[in-house]
Amino acid sequence: METVFAERMGHVKKSFIREILKVTEDPSVISFAGGLPSPASFPVEAIDRAAQAVLEEDGANALQYSTTEGFLPLREFICARYAKRFGLRVTPEEILITNGSQQGLDLIGKVFLDEGDGVLLEAPGYLGAIQAFSLFSPHFHTVPLRQDGVAVDALQAVLETHAPKLFYAVPNFQNPSGLSYSRANRERAAAVLKQHDTIFIEDDPYGELRFAGEEAPSMRTFLGGQSILLGSFSKIVAPAMRLGWICAKPEIMEKLIVAKQASDLHTNAFAQRVVARYLADNDLDKHIEKIRQMYKMRSDCMADAIARYFPPDVHCTRPQGGMFMWATLPEGMSSIDLFQRASAMRVAFVPGAPFYVDRSDVNTLRLNYTNSDEAAIQEGICRLGQAMTEMLSGVGRVEVLAR
Amino acid sequence: METVFAERMGHVKKSFIREILKVTEDPSVISFAGGLPSPASFPVEAIDRAAQAVLEEDGANALQYSTTEGFLPLREFICARYAKRFGLRVTPEEILITNGSQQGLDLIGKVFLDEGDGVLLEAPGYLGAIQAFSLFSPHFHTVPLRQDGVAVDALQAVLETHAPKLFYAVPNFQNPSGLSYSRANRERAAAVLKQHDTIFIEDDPYGELRFAGEEAPSMRTFLGGQSILLGSFSKIVAPAMRLGWICAKPEIMEKLIVAKQASDLHTNAFAQRVVARYLADNDLDKHIEKIRQMYKMRSDCMADAIARYFPPDVHCTRPQGGMFMWATLPEGMSSIDLFQRASAMRVAFVPGAPFYVDRSDVNTLRLNYTNSDEAAIQEGICRLGQAMTEMLSGVGRVEVLAR
Repeated sequence: METVFAERMGHVKKSFIREILKVTEDPSVISFAGGLPSPASFPVEAIDRAAQAVLEEDGANALQYSTTEGFLPLREFICARYAKRFGLRVTPEEILITNGSQQGLDLIGKVFLDEGDGVLLEAPGYLGAIQAFSLFSPHFHTVPLRQDGVAVDALQAVLETHAPKLFYAVPNFQNPSGLSYSRANRERAAAVLKQHDTIFIEDDPYGELRFAGEEAPSMRTFLGGQSILLGSFSKIVAPAMRLGWICAKPEIMEKLIVAKQASDLHTNAFAQRVVARYLADNDLDKHIEKIRQMYKMRSDCMADAIARYFPPDVHCTRPQGGMFMWATLPEGMSSIDLFQRASAMRVAFVPGAPFYVDRSDVNTLRLNYTNSDEAAIQEGICRLGQAMTEMLSGVGRVEVLAR
Repeated sequence: METVFAERMGHVKKSFIREILKVTEDPSVISFAGGLPSPASFPVEAIDRAAQAVLEEDGANALQYSTTEGFLPLREFICARYAKRFGLRVTPEEILITNGSQQGLDLIGKVFLDEGDGVLLEAPGYLGAIQAFSLFSPHFHTVPLRQDGVAVDALQAVLETHAPKLFYAVPNFQNPSGLSYSRANRERAAAVLKQHDTIFIEDDPYGELRFAGEEAPSMRTFLGGQSILLGSFSKIVAPAMRLGWICAKPEIMEKLIVAKQASDLHTNAFAQRVVARYLADNDLDKHIEKIRQMYKMRSDCMADAIARYFPPDVHCTRPQGGMFMWATLPEGMSSIDLFQRASAMRVAFVPGAPFYVDRSDVNTLRLNYTNSDEAAIQEGICRLGQAMTEMLSGVGRVEVLAR
């Protein structure tokens, strides 16, 4: 008996990152490949206290089935935080708790995407979004990123030509590039979007992790109900909890709730109560400030090491927050070849290709700086610089080709 | 700006159960409507100890991102339990941890269903499955249930005529009917299935909750890799944790993992560790025995009250386990009309219609007995019997029609 799978399964590839993570299981490999926050940032003891308080005070209620929308106090916290960060007025009815913001992408795909519908992505773009949307067999379009944000002329052109249903973007410290949209860029992009029916999906898992520059407003400030905002506790509390959320206007939220219910009834309600309790009993701003300082040190350390060890014609972004840097090798140099050479030297990263919908090999790569300490960052960047230098000078080239 | 949703959203209705739950928010209503386990069965203190042990011993590891497949010790526990219950040999590589078994349905839909593909359901069938599969716009077929299981002749006919890709069933204490497949019925159904390529989806959330009769083997015993088995900790540990699993052969599992990763990366890893720890430190058999005794008492109580208060031409199933009874009213009597009359008398249930893919009003209804104590069961069944009697005798009929 031959098993016949759905056609959509041909559109989605097993994540290249997961394949890389297999290489990096070897503890002697210094890995800049994953997208993991520093475990040193997780509030283990405070979560322990919160879990105990929830079970002692809420008892069996904390372990029963719950509402699809999510735990109300957690949704109220999210609304209050949007008000504080951006002056955004959002009601709990506009918040749906999801299994991490990744599930938000799946639910948005379910609610909006018929086969062949247009989805606009940044190039490079978040590979988890490429995977999630691919299951709905859309037609992808892309728009390039510049130092200050999305290329607005290109955005206007693609909106006019293709009228995509969704535009998915990560305006703060983008994964993979580390780039952010400036305030002026947001205003210009929003002005163009408002002339079209395209819904803007603003994924913001890193926005709270700013360690340089000035906070810019959420695109929702300019776009209102034309935007859907995704958030996550993964990078500011703990990713194992799989707690993210979707913020959307009621007309859209109604459909998202139907899709969420059909998909898994509701998000882990015990975890929702534990995190809500943690947030009520602890100072999140103080906690985030510690994470910011740690990530600033690691980002500075990586930037310094890059300046010292990378060949001068390799260019890197300098993020103002978040978790990633993006390196561009000289034209024609393959980051997949570099990955092979580097992994033999026990250092890993993610080659750029999986962040594009239309390229199989590129001269770009992603570096994560949040999950390595400073000694590892210096040693790893030194090894990686050596691999680049050897590759540029042709040393060992024959051996690599011969494999 | 008009929001244009995906076509599939027209195929799935907001669950009628959720609408009913709004009625039952009033605490003076006795509800047999929900599908909730008894909160008295939740091991609150043992979960508290397990959560503390996990955070104290595993620390930040318990809060980091984890593998898509799920926490290995939990998957090993599931394999060991299948070996013990059924003598089934399953490896951890054949187990994927999901957000409750509801997510298993979504992932199976993603992996197998193209638009218009055939899905065979029991009639009546689990409405969560109808909802989950509806998102993939399949063509539904149905096969009736008998007292001893699926109607095998009808099964054979529909397999031959329509060759559905999937046959979804709940062979133990089915939701909504409470009926179970006998051992002989399983053998006959499996013999028919083996002559076709249809994959059998065996959803088994209630199998451990047997309080009468003899345990029957899993259909996987007969079907091997032609079956996909779904399980859940929701009814034997706690539903808030949203921990279920899919058991499938490696060829299928590979695709399910890709779909799971695209859908939400992985299931809450903290909850997986907590439940694994709970299972390691406690005697699950002893815990389940307590639940069985409680549910047997409540089931007996409901059956006794039904014998006393329901009109004699209302017929009910007598389940050997699980959470539900299924009542059949006299031909032509609407369970939706009965719901309206009963809710005015402050007792609620689920009318049968949402458990069918092709009927909008029927003379059947579902009664849950696990989430009410014995006093509430007696009082609620008394009220419901009164509503039935009044309706059958035409008392108050004018007022109902006049609304």
